[in-house]
Amino acid sequence: MINRELIKKLASQLKKDGVDALLVAPSSDLIFLLGHKPYLCERFQALVVTAKEETFYICNRLTEAEAIGFMDGDKVYQWMDSDGFTGVAKQAFEDFGLIGKKIAVNGAVRAFNLVKLMEAIDFTPANGKDYLELTRIIKTPEELENLRKSSLIVDKVFEDIVKFIKPGMTERDVKNEIARLSKLYGGEGCDGGIVAVDANAANPHYFGDSAVIGEHAVVEMDFGCTYKGMYSDITRTVIVGKATEREKELYNLVLQANLAGEAAAVNGAWIPDVDAAARKVIADAGYGYEFNHRLGHGIGYAGHEAPYIHGDYKMHLAPGMAFSCEPGIYIRGEIGIRIEDVVIINEKGETEILNKCTKELIEIC
Amino acid sequence: MINRELIKKLASQLKKDGVDALLVAPSSDLIFLLGHKPYLCERFQALVVTAKEETFYICNRLTEAEAIGFMDGDKVYQWMDSDGFTGVAKQAFEDFGLIGKKIAVNGAVRAFNLVKLMEAIDFTPANGKDYLELTRIIKTPEELENLRKSSLIVDKVFEDIVKFIKPGMTERDVKNEIARLSKLYGGEGCDGGIVAVDANAANPHYFGDSAVIGEHAVVEMDFGCTYKGMYSDITRTVIVGKATEREKELYNLVLQANLAGEAAAVNGAWIPDVDAAARKVIADAGYGYEFNHRLGHGIGYAGHEAPYIHGDYKMHLAPGMAFSCEPGIYIRGEIGIRIEDVVIINEKGETEILNKCTKELIEIC
Repeated sequence: MINRELIKKLASQLKKDGVDALLVAPSSDLIFLLGHKPYLCERFQALVVTAKEETFYICNRLTEAEAIGFMDGDKVYQWMDSDGFTGVAKQAFEDFGLIGKKIAVNGAVRAFNLVKLMEAIDFTPANGKDYLELTRIIKTPEELENLRKSSLIVDKVFEDIVKFIKPGMTERDVKNEIARLSKLYGGEGCDGGIVAVDANAANPHYFGDSAVIGEHAVVEMDFGCTYKGMYSDITRTVIVGKATEREKELYNLVLQANLAGEAAAVNGAWIPDVDAAARKVIADAGYGYEFNHRLGHGIGYAGHEAPYIHGDYKMHLAPGMAFSCEPGIYIRGEIGIRIEDVVIINEKGETEILNKCTKELIEIC
Repeated sequence: MINRELIKKLASQLKKDGVDALLVAPSSDLIFLLGHKPYLCERFQALVVTAKEETFYICNRLTEAEAIGFMDGDKVYQWMDSDGFTGVAKQAFEDFGLIGKKIAVNGAVRAFNLVKLMEAIDFTPANGKDYLELTRIIKTPEELENLRKSSLIVDKVFEDIVKFIKPGMTERDVKNEIARLSKLYGGEGCDGGIVAVDANAANPHYFGDSAVIGEHAVVEMDFGCTYKGMYSDITRTVIVGKATEREKELYNLVLQANLAGEAAAVNGAWIPDVDAAARKVIADAGYGYEFNHRLGHGIGYAGHEAPYIHGDYKMHLAPGMAFSCEPGIYIRGEIGIRIEDVVIINEKGETEILNKCTKELIEIC
């Protein structure tokens, strides 16, 4: 069912920005607009929302029945595989007066489909990735409560996984156990996340799983699940065996940066300042280049969404915002350490760190 | 490691088409070019291949170390979250003489990132989705053998699942068992696919899982796995209880269409004719609109790839091609029936139907 309230809000924002329509391909964005996320293959499909509050849908005939089901009588344009989609899209753009206009695309539209549209129809493309994310940047009390519960699940998983890890296990063994525990504690969509041993952790987005945990090892774990659709996201790095002085030094730097970021993350704070507070700790110690990503990302119905916590995200923190605080140091060929919590500014304007499990350095002996 | 042979082949094709470079974002395309598929989040990253056989990589600093690892000394441009990627991309385009040129995008580049590039840099975008798919449209004998083995796995799963299905089970129960069996028989990446009961099957891409199988039910199952990276893909539709006359009639139509498509799929056949041979059977019986998708898609290292079997795909079948033959009839609110095999034109130019399990109507009583 179309969420007319949200369409109205979105249309008003489009109008303000001089954008005539937004193409919303299937993604978490559509869950909000339609209460439904169709499966997206290589075939073009999108909900189109105009600045005049109109909505229509373009899809392959394959999913026409599905689209009719959620479009509440609003127009569904269908195209057959052998015809391609641009003819039907052109007709739709003509019907809704969008020829020659400014049309934005959400984060899920594929570039090759945009090129096909641009070759067939006269319009000016615009980046519309943030529109839906911004409409949900302030979480409701119920959503905040579900974020808390989602974080509680991964906290429990972490407490158990520390007792599980032993030398000789593979990264995969640990991932499988994380997935099992997350499900056991009521999480949805649990995949085990990232488990990276030693130098593998120097790649913040490492997704291998075959390395073996040695008698002495650094084990970085970054995982999450959803609870009633709301994501959790935690990272902890533990040492198997006794930590070396070097490991202790790097760990403490990351921990101090994490704490500095969380201390700066107060209601009303300027987001670039929050990033800078954490970054300064690590940069002052000479590892500025090795903290090679933003401090965090918003979190909610998507794992990554607005607000993004970095030096160029010009916004103030406000009650209802939820985001990660996850500094790290990554040294190629050697080590990676990251410590991540989810943080919210609650209804009262207080900062709450949703992950309660310890951040003290754990040595598994 | 960069596959220089493939880069050469690709560059020569780009040159022929008057395209100056191709942006290849992480997808199965990169497995071929780099032997590696980096994780793709919302941050822009791509291998760039020029018509002059040069390669360079653009990525977030987060993945710089990973990219240096697979780029064999070729240039890696990195950007930091707080800076955005267009400045670095512009520098790279200048260094390689790509300003003002024609730049194609592969299937994985996101449209909002293309818009950002177009706003920052002068170039003409082009659709480059097919380039990599076309380089692998002719499978090697080893790849064909792996396709056979992959199909053998799903055949065995089907034979077992027929004995498993009982009234009272949910779609999810059947999916879980399909996933378990696929893994048991040596499949990789098994997720249970699509299991759709009764009217749910009228949506060819139905991905729900909560409906219960009644005493009388139509159960459509579409699933696959990979074996050494090569996909299988099978669909069978079975009846729980005794089939009605209507079900028998529709099932037989789909079966005759499947057989007609497979009979037409001979070495040298014109692809639109193959699609038409199957479509005619169903259209002649009055269900042309309800066979609402192409007859099939190529299959290999991606689940869907070239050649696509539909009326506008202007190519002849040739030895080494692999594709699905999957006609269906979908009647909204009532029923969906699809029968799918994977077909190859083998090294000798013979048509081989890789799925051997029965297509006779099965009644589970």
